[in-house]
Amino acid sequence: MNYRMISYIIGWVLNTEAVLMVPACITALIYGEREILSLLCSMGVCLVFGIPLVFRRPANRAYYTKEGCVTAALSWIIMSLMGSLPFIFSGVLPNPVDAMFETVSGFTTTGSSVITDVEIVPRCIIFWRSFTHWIGGMGVLVFLIALFPSAGNIQMNLMRAESPGPSVSRLVPKVQSTSKILYKLYLAMTLLQIVLLLLGHMPLFDALTITFGSAGTGGFGIKNDSMASYSVYCQVVVTVFMILFGVNFSFYFLLLVRRSLQCFKMEEVRWYFGIITAAILLIAWDLRDIYSNVFTAIQQAAFQVGSIITTTGYATTDFNVWPAFSKTILVMLMFAGSCAGSTGGGMKVSRLVILLKTIRRELHLYLHPQGVRAIKMDGKPVEQEVLRSTNVFVITYIILFAFSVLLLSFDEYDLVTNFTAVAATFNNIGPGLELVGPAANFAFLSNPSKLVLIFDMLAGRLELFPLLLLFVPETWRKF
Amino acid sequence: MNYRMISYIIGWVLNTEAVLMVPACITALIYGEREILSLLCSMGVCLVFGIPLVFRRPANRAYYTKEGCVTAALSWIIMSLMGSLPFIFSGVLPNPVDAMFETVSGFTTTGSSVITDVEIVPRCIIFWRSFTHWIGGMGVLVFLIALFPSAGNIQMNLMRAESPGPSVSRLVPKVQSTSKILYKLYLAMTLLQIVLLLLGHMPLFDALTITFGSAGTGGFGIKNDSMASYSVYCQVVVTVFMILFGVNFSFYFLLLVRRSLQCFKMEEVRWYFGIITAAILLIAWDLRDIYSNVFTAIQQAAFQVGSIITTTGYATTDFNVWPAFSKTILVMLMFAGSCAGSTGGGMKVSRLVILLKTIRRELHLYLHPQGVRAIKMDGKPVEQEVLRSTNVFVITYIILFAFSVLLLSFDEYDLVTNFTAVAATFNNIGPGLELVGPAANFAFLSNPSKLVLIFDMLAGRLELFPLLLLFVPETWRKF
Repeated sequence: MNYRMISYIIGWVLNTEAVLMVPACITALIYGEREILSLLCSMGVCLVFGIPLVFRRPANRAYYTKEGCVTAALSWIIMSLMGSLPFIFSGVLPNPVDAMFETVSGFTTTGSSVITDVEIVPRCIIFWRSFTHWIGGMGVLVFLIALFPSAGNIQMNLMRAESPGPSVSRLVPKVQSTSKILYKLYLAMTLLQIVLLLLGHMPLFDALTITFGSAGTGGFGIKNDSMASYSVYCQVVVTVFMILFGVNFSFYFLLLVRRSLQCFKMEEVRWYFGIITAAILLIAWDLRDIYSNVFTAIQQAAFQVGSIITTTGYATTDFNVWPAFSKTILVMLMFAGSCAGSTGGGMKVSRLVILLKTIRRELHLYLHPQGVRAIKMDGKPVEQEVLRSTNVFVITYIILFAFSVLLLSFDEYDLVTNFTAVAATFNNIGPGLELVGPAANFAFLSNPSKLVLIFDMLAGRLELFPLLLLFVPETWRKF
Repeated sequence: MNYRMISYIIGWVLNTEAVLMVPACITALIYGEREILSLLCSMGVCLVFGIPLVFRRPANRAYYTKEGCVTAALSWIIMSLMGSLPFIFSGVLPNPVDAMFETVSGFTTTGSSVITDVEIVPRCIIFWRSFTHWIGGMGVLVFLIALFPSAGNIQMNLMRAESPGPSVSRLVPKVQSTSKILYKLYLAMTLLQIVLLLLGHMPLFDALTITFGSAGTGGFGIKNDSMASYSVYCQVVVTVFMILFGVNFSFYFLLLVRRSLQCFKMEEVRWYFGIITAAILLIAWDLRDIYSNVFTAIQQAAFQVGSIITTTGYATTDFNVWPAFSKTILVMLMFAGSCAGSTGGGMKVSRLVILLKTIRRELHLYLHPQGVRAIKMDGKPVEQEVLRSTNVFVITYIILFAFSVLLLSFDEYDLVTNFTAVAATFNNIGPGLELVGPAANFAFLSNPSKLVLIFDMLAGRLELFPLLLLFVPETWRKF
C-alpha cells in the first residue's frame, strides 16, 4: 500500500475543499452574516492538515486498484468531516453526528436533511450546504484530475473508484482530457439552468442553490416545503434539468462535441427515457382523481418521477399521501436510479439492462443448452468481467441493504420508514416514505441509526466496494 | 418439443393424483361426511383425463431440459386445477380462484389460506388440504420417478426441474434409486413425528394433518389460531421437526444410510443451524419484556424462527404485534429459506452462502487483480455454471418480486401488506405481516391479486425458470 501517495492526494483534496468554501464566504459578505467566521475557521482547519501533506511529492508511483479505492473512500470521509465544521462552528447543527449526516448527505448528493427548519439557517451555510451537492455530483477526485497533471495509472484508478456505473467510459484516450470535458459539460449545463430559472423571476440566491441541487442530483431544498412554493415554470425547468443531469454524460459528449447522432442509439439512454415516460403516465393515471386537470397530474407526476429516478429528491408535493400504486412505482424507481456516468445515484439503468439481458440469456439456455449467446450492449458484447462485477454489485447491495434495515429497526419505527430511509440514503435520493417522507426529515432518528445511514450514503455514492475495502484487514498491509 | 411424452407423463400425474385422494375418502367414510361425493367426482375427473393420456407409451424418447421444465410446470398447474375440484364441489370455496389459490398454496407447501374459518370445514376436505402439503413437499414427479422405471434422461430432467436448490445432488448414481431413498427418508421422518405427537396426547386426525404440514414445510393450520392452542410439548415437537425437514436430505442420507460423520461438515447445514440459532437468540432477547420468563421467550422465538426459515408458516402467536426488530429478522429469514434438497422453499441457504463467497472473492480481486480464486463449497470448487445460474436466479427473483408487489398495489392496501404477501407466497411460507399476518388470511384480496400470488407460489416452488419458460413463444416450437 502506497501510503505516501494516498496522503498526498488527500492533502490536495483538503486544500481544494478550503478553496471551494470561498463562494460561501462571499455569500456571507454579501448578506453581512457573522457566520463567515465559522467558514473561515473551517478553511483554516482544512489547510492546517492539507498543506503539510502536499509539501513533498512522493517518489513512489506504484498505484493500483486498491490504492485508488482507499484514496477515494478516505477522501470522501475526510472531506465530509471537514465539510461538517461550518455546521458545527456556526451552531446550526451542534451535534457532530448531525453535522456529519448533513455533509455526507450533501457530498453524496443524497439530500436527506436533519435540519428541521431550513428557513432560519444563515444564507452562507445554506449556500455551502447546496454547493456540496455540486462538488459531489461530478466528484472531487475527477475535479483534481482535471486540474493537475499526474501519472496515467493514478488518474485511471482514481477515476474508476469515484465514477458510478458498471464500467468507466473514457470519452477520449487521456483520462485528464476526459475529466476536463466532463467538468466543462457540467458547468455549461449548470449555467444554462441558472439562466433559465432567473428568466422565471427566481431570486439569484435561490436559482444558484436550486441549480446546485439539481445539477448534482442532490436535492437539498432551501425552503421547508422543498420546491412546492415555486412557480409551475420553475418546477418544469427543474424537472427537465433533473432528468437531463441523470443522462449518461457520454450522450452529451457524442451530441455536442462529436456532433454525432449515434448518441440517440445508446441503449441505456433509451431505456432511461422509456422508464421515465412509462412511470409518469402510470402515476398520472393513478392520480387522475386527485388533481383537477390532466396537465397538473402529468406535471406533478413528472416532477416526482424525475426527482426520484435521478435520485435528486426535490418534491413539489407530499407523495407520501399518494395512493399505494403510485408510491410503489416511486419505490421501484428509487432502486433503478439514473444512467451510469451521470451525477445520479441508485443501481444505474445500465446495470438493470444488463441484468434483464442475463435473464433472457438464461431462458435461452434452457431451450438451447449448448448455444451460449454473448450479452450485448450498444451492439458490443459485454465483457465477462463487467457481467461478474454487475452481479456481485447487486448481491452486495441487497445484503448491505437488508442489514441496514435490520440495524435501523432497533429504533422501533415502522417497517416502511426503515425500509425507505435506507432506500433513500443508499440510493442517494433524499426523502423516503412515512416518517421520512418529503414533508418530514431525518432529525428524529437516533445517533446510531444516523451513523448507519451515513455509511449507506457513502457506500451508495462510491458503489460499495471502495468503502468495504477499508474494513478488510489485508488492505492495510504494507505489501 | 416432445409433446407426446409430456402429455404421457401428465397423464400419470393425474392418475396418481386420483389415487392420492383415497386417504381423504377414507377420512370421509370414518367421519360419515357426505363430502365424499365431491372427492369421488374429483377422482373421476382426474381419471377421465388421465387414463386416455397414458394409453399408449410414446416411442420418441427425445427429452431435454426444456421438456423437463415444461412437464414440471404443466404438471403442477394441472395437478392444482384438479386438486381444487374437491373445494369447489363441496362448496367450501365456491369461487374457482379461491379454490385454485388454496390448492396451489397446498401443493407448493406455502400454507397461505383464503378460508376464513377452517374449524367448520368438513374433515375430509381438511385432510385433503393438508395432504397436498405432503405430496408437494418432496414433489409428485419425484414420486413418479420412484415408482416407475423410465429412461435416465427423462428421470434426470424431471428431477432437475422439480428439485429445489442451485444444483441437483444425486445421492446415488441412479436417479430412480435417489428418489426412492428420498421418499423412504421422508416417510420415516413423517411417521416418527406422528408417533411423537400422539405421545403428547394429540388426536390422530390432528397429528396426521399437522405432520403433513410440517413434513412438507407447508403450514396449513387446522384451527383458526394455527398452533397456538396445542400444548408446549406438541409445539416443541413441531418446532424440531419443522427445522429437521428444512435440512438438506443429503445430510440424512450420509448420516443414516452411509453412516458417515461427513454430514456434519456440510457447509450449508452448518450455516442453516447457525442462522437459526442467531435468529432465536436475537428475537428472544428482543422479546424479553413481552414474555414472563426466558424459557417461554426462547420457545416462542424458536417456533416462529423455525416456522419462517423452513417456510412452513405455522404460528403459535401473532408475531405481527412483535417489536420492529424481531419482525425485521423474520422478514429477512423469509428470503433466506431452508436448505437446498429439503422440502422447504425460499432462496435456499446454499445460494446465500455462494453469494457471500462471491462478495469475498470480489473484495479479494480488488486487492489482487490478477489472482482469481475459485469459490469452494464443502471443499470442492463450485462450477461456473452453478455460479451463473445462482446469480441469475437471484436477479430474476428480485425483478419478479418487485413486479408482483406493483401488481398487488392496485388493491390499495398498505406497502407492508403487499410486500409481505408477496414474500410469504413467493417463498412458499404462508403468513406475512399486517393484513396478511398470522392472525389473518388472504381471503380479502381481489381475484387479480390472488392470481398474481398463485403465479408467485408456483414460480417459487419450481424456482422460477420452469414456469417462465411457458411464456417464451420459442418453447412451443415443434423443433
